[in-house]
Amino acid sequence: MMTHALAGEQTRLVSGSTSRSRPNGRRISKRSKVVIATVISIGLLLALVHLAFPSTFALRSTPNKKKNVIFFVTDGMGPASLSMARSFNQHIHDLPIDNILMLDQHFIGSSRTRSSDSLVTDSAAGATAFACALKSYNGAIGVDPHQTPCGTVLEAAKLAGYFTGLVVTTRITDATPASFSSHADFRWQEDLIATHQLGEYPLGRMVDLLMGGGRTHFYPQGSDASPYGHQGSRKDGRDLIDEAQSNGWQYVGDRKSFDSLLNAHGDNVTLPLLGLFADNDIPFEIDRDEKEYPSLKEQVSVALKALEKASDEDEDSNGFFLMVEGSRIDHAGHQNDPASQVREVLAFDEAFQYVLEFAKNSDTETVLVSTSDHETGGLVTSRQITASYPEYVWYPQVLANATHSGEFLKKKLVDFVHDLGATGKLENFIKHEILERDLGIFDYTDDDVNTLIHLGDNANAIQEKLNDMVSFRAQIGWTTHGHSAVDVNIYAYTNRKTTWSRILEKLQGNHENTEIGQFLADYLELNLNKVTDLIRDTKHSLNFSATEITNEVPHYDEYYHELST
Amino acid sequence: MMTHALAGEQTRLVSGSTSRSRPNGRRISKRSKVVIATVISIGLLLALVHLAFPSTFALRSTPNKKKNVIFFVTDGMGPASLSMARSFNQHIHDLPIDNILMLDQHFIGSSRTRSSDSLVTDSAAGATAFACALKSYNGAIGVDPHQTPCGTVLEAAKLAGYFTGLVVTTRITDATPASFSSHADFRWQEDLIATHQLGEYPLGRMVDLLMGGGRTHFYPQGSDASPYGHQGSRKDGRDLIDEAQSNGWQYVGDRKSFDSLLNAHGDNVTLPLLGLFADNDIPFEIDRDEKEYPSLKEQVSVALKALEKASDEDEDSNGFFLMVEGSRIDHAGHQNDPASQVREVLAFDEAFQYVLEFAKNSDTETVLVSTSDHETGGLVTSRQITASYPEYVWYPQVLANATHSGEFLKKKLVDFVHDLGATGKLENFIKHEILERDLGIFDYTDDDVNTLIHLGDNANAIQEKLNDMVSFRAQIGWTTHGHSAVDVNIYAYTNRKTTWSRILEKLQGNHENTEIGQFLADYLELNLNKVTDLIRDTKHSLNFSATEITNEVPHYDEYYHELST
Repeated sequence: MMTHALAGEQTRLVSGSTSRSRPNGRRISKRSKVVIATVISIGLLLALVHLAFPSTFALRSTPNKKKNVIFFVTDGMGPASLSMARSFNQHIHDLPIDNILMLDQHFIGSSRTRSSDSLVTDSAAGATAFACALKSYNGAIGVDPHQTPCGTVLEAAKLAGYFTGLVVTTRITDATPASFSSHADFRWQEDLIATHQLGEYPLGRMVDLLMGGGRTHFYPQGSDASPYGHQGSRKDGRDLIDEAQSNGWQYVGDRKSFDSLLNAHGDNVTLPLLGLFADNDIPFEIDRDEKEYPSLKEQVSVALKALEKASDEDEDSNGFFLMVEGSRIDHAGHQNDPASQVREVLAFDEAFQYVLEFAKNSDTETVLVSTSDHETGGLVTSRQITASYPEYVWYPQVLANATHSGEFLKKKLVDFVHDLGATGKLENFIKHEILERDLGIFDYTDDDVNTLIHLGDNANAIQEKLNDMVSFRAQIGWTTHGHSAVDVNIYAYTNRKTTWSRILEKLQGNHENTEIGQFLADYLELNLNKVTDLIRDTKHSLNFSATEITNEVPHYDEYYHELST
Repeated sequence: MMTHALAGEQTRLVSGSTSRSRPNGRRISKRSKVVIATVISIGLLLALVHLAFPSTFALRSTPNKKKNVIFFVTDGMGPASLSMARSFNQHIHDLPIDNILMLDQHFIGSSRTRSSDSLVTDSAAGATAFACALKSYNGAIGVDPHQTPCGTVLEAAKLAGYFTGLVVTTRITDATPASFSSHADFRWQEDLIATHQLGEYPLGRMVDLLMGGGRTHFYPQGSDASPYGHQGSRKDGRDLIDEAQSNGWQYVGDRKSFDSLLNAHGDNVTLPLLGLFADNDIPFEIDRDEKEYPSLKEQVSVALKALEKASDEDEDSNGFFLMVEGSRIDHAGHQNDPASQVREVLAFDEAFQYVLEFAKNSDTETVLVSTSDHETGGLVTSRQITASYPEYVWYPQVLANATHSGEFLKKKLVDFVHDLGATGKLENFIKHEILERDLGIFDYTDDDVNTLIHLGDNANAIQEKLNDMVSFRAQIGWTTHGHSAVDVNIYAYTNRKTTWSRILEKLQGNHENTEIGQFLADYLELNLNKVTDLIRDTKHSLNFSATEITNEVPHYDEYYHELST
């Protein structure tokens, strides 16, 4: 049983962190000592609690009947993203109008998304609603509105004998996976979040599998800090990959080692497993070089293989809980890039379909629930481009013609500007390479080209202009680079008829996002409050450096944008 | 049984129309003769068919078990309208965040909305999908993509022994009610549509109750043409109100006569009933003078009373089919007026709740289905109003402060300009009357006021500016004055448990809009194809004047905008 690792592993990981030099001198050292002492005390307390009340996290009332739950988050995917991706898919494959996405076929309800402090949530509050089944403030990572840590579905599942995993396409330390596996006052504390995810928290290691991007928060700041040639950004100088491997994690950090797991029959896939495939985000599907980066479906394939194998081999296991995020649907929304978003949605739909087939073929009772934390971008599949009354159309073929994201092309164009800078060549490059070849736009105007020339190396302005050229021609509208308050969809599937009745009863119709988290907890027979009781008094957010404090950004989502620029 | 009126009434109505002089001389007269001959021939044919095969429209297989269906259309209401109205309602009544609309509590699925010729439907194709359970082109009124008339749920219900009614807040001849009760190539043929609705069609009178606005299409062109002081616009010079009353219709044309029905115990409510309460649209709920205009809920109350009474008194009746439209949610969307839209949605929700209570208290098996034809305006409950990263908020209090629509205020301001025109007084009027008193906006800028002054009597530009001032401050976004392609919600209720299982089976999840129409037909055990066979060869659209033909507008929705300006 995994629960027995609790006190020991946490002490080891915490000890590891104290042995390293810290850049912030006396004040931080003092604070660190207090933190360490607190953490160790709570750890011992937990160990005692665990010995005294072994049934605190007793197995579910129906032992030996395993359950698997795969919870999907389509970050930033609102209702309009679905109609856009569906029509795009019909267009590129010449399908009839009743050909719908796999997700569409499992639509069951909708979710209200507001956070505790705003009608418009962010991904942190959104994910905390799923993870802890409570409303919190924008920016909150696994903490309630009073910044008290709240037990998560993933933690409770782990403590109740389930294997656990998180698979994403953004940084694994980003808000959604973080809210299931760490506790922090603010989402930008990603250096801290990474340590929680590896087990440096009173509960010990709660996650068995971490896959996605975000290597930067696992390596020390400075390009030469990592033995793997990656750019690290940790301000505390720690190499978490090295520590994790010392602590028994299997690490895969590139396509080749990933493929050895993907193509294996399972023998070489061991838990805990850490897979980090990009320094920050894995590239958009439209840009993804499949020789370098796995797809979401491939990541999910390995995750299912690993979790199923571990669960099969452990007779005490109750099954597994896996969270899969289509993370960058949100980023395409923030960037107002419809050509990238449709591919992100379809890549997610493929991963969903893969898990669906897995569940259909599984002898274990399996539940799939998929929803979004919020909508991003104020996407509308219609946009008035004339002063007079608008036509009632939008054009998926424009999105089909584009072969790269604005994010990719801004880098390409800025690199060209830095290398050459000669206006004549730049104009040709913009016209023939960027617009015609990469975006499939041939009806550009002189104004379009001149605007792009004069933007020089202003990467974000270039991205904005290119994405707008695509959106305008497709007649796709956006109202913001942030989020909106529209309800999002809920999808579900199970391979058990009686369980389907229960899903219908609990998730059919319109719900608060917290009810989705509560459903997951109830279905797995978990008591989140008991986990909260164990971590309520931890000083969970003091263990970051002063640099991080002074760097606090007023709009936490800018953090992402800074990183990705 | 109503079906027996078929041949006789149609002949009478058609005869009535031939006795009137036509303004278009010889060519139209010739065509008219052909049309009349065709209509009479088909009428006789139908009468023969009816005598020869009395079971063609035999009662449902379970006679004496009545069913009532109330089908609701929220024209132009997309998912974002719901989150906006719900949060607005919570704000104005200081309700907790889990207080949701009555509609929300009956959310069951979503509908894809595209038409046969575009990814973005209009209301005509949308309503024809519900009425005939088939996809047609934008502008189509009860006709298929080849402009062949298609039998509607309402017609089939009438022929199968149900009483039928239509209740709206726009013109009763507008696209949604028209598609259930008439057959025309284009939605702007409203003069023709009115005649069909009163029974001037081979099937005879199919509608027992018509309530809403749109008197203008029932009176001859010219203000003195109507004995009731209303402005008519019919180009054929006919007074359909007078004709309808001669043909046995009860007519209510003002609040006072409406109230005599509203407050009665039912004795004075007789079918067929024609209630027309405005020349064009009934004013927005935010502007509605309740002394002059009934609410949607009040209209529905009278309609239910009339239909229930008729059904109770007719032992051969199978129940009734009523279509109720929250018509002007769409108009608030077209005008990008969020303060008006939230009140339209809440007024609809009240009407829905009223019918829900009716169904709960009814001994007759009753089904409610509510959906939208499409989204309008590209509404987003979030809008970036700064160049830097947006806040994650929107402000319902701004909508609460507004006490009139842009549509109302543009008239008020233009009237003031025409009466006075003195800039000094105009500035004060704009500041203190329009902005502060009517819209509750006190943080207007000099630019705002100067813009409004310089717009003079440009009514539509004034409306645009005022609505944008509200939307901007509420941080509500719009991407178009037209429609968008996002899926819309489906809501349902029934007072029978077994029927609920059937609704779940057929309407839960994501559906084509045509499946909703097919559900209605199947539930009422109707065969739409049999109705189509009866009217397939009617020359349904030749009976309009040359003036209408030459006035054809390229964007049919502009017709509405011209009328309402």
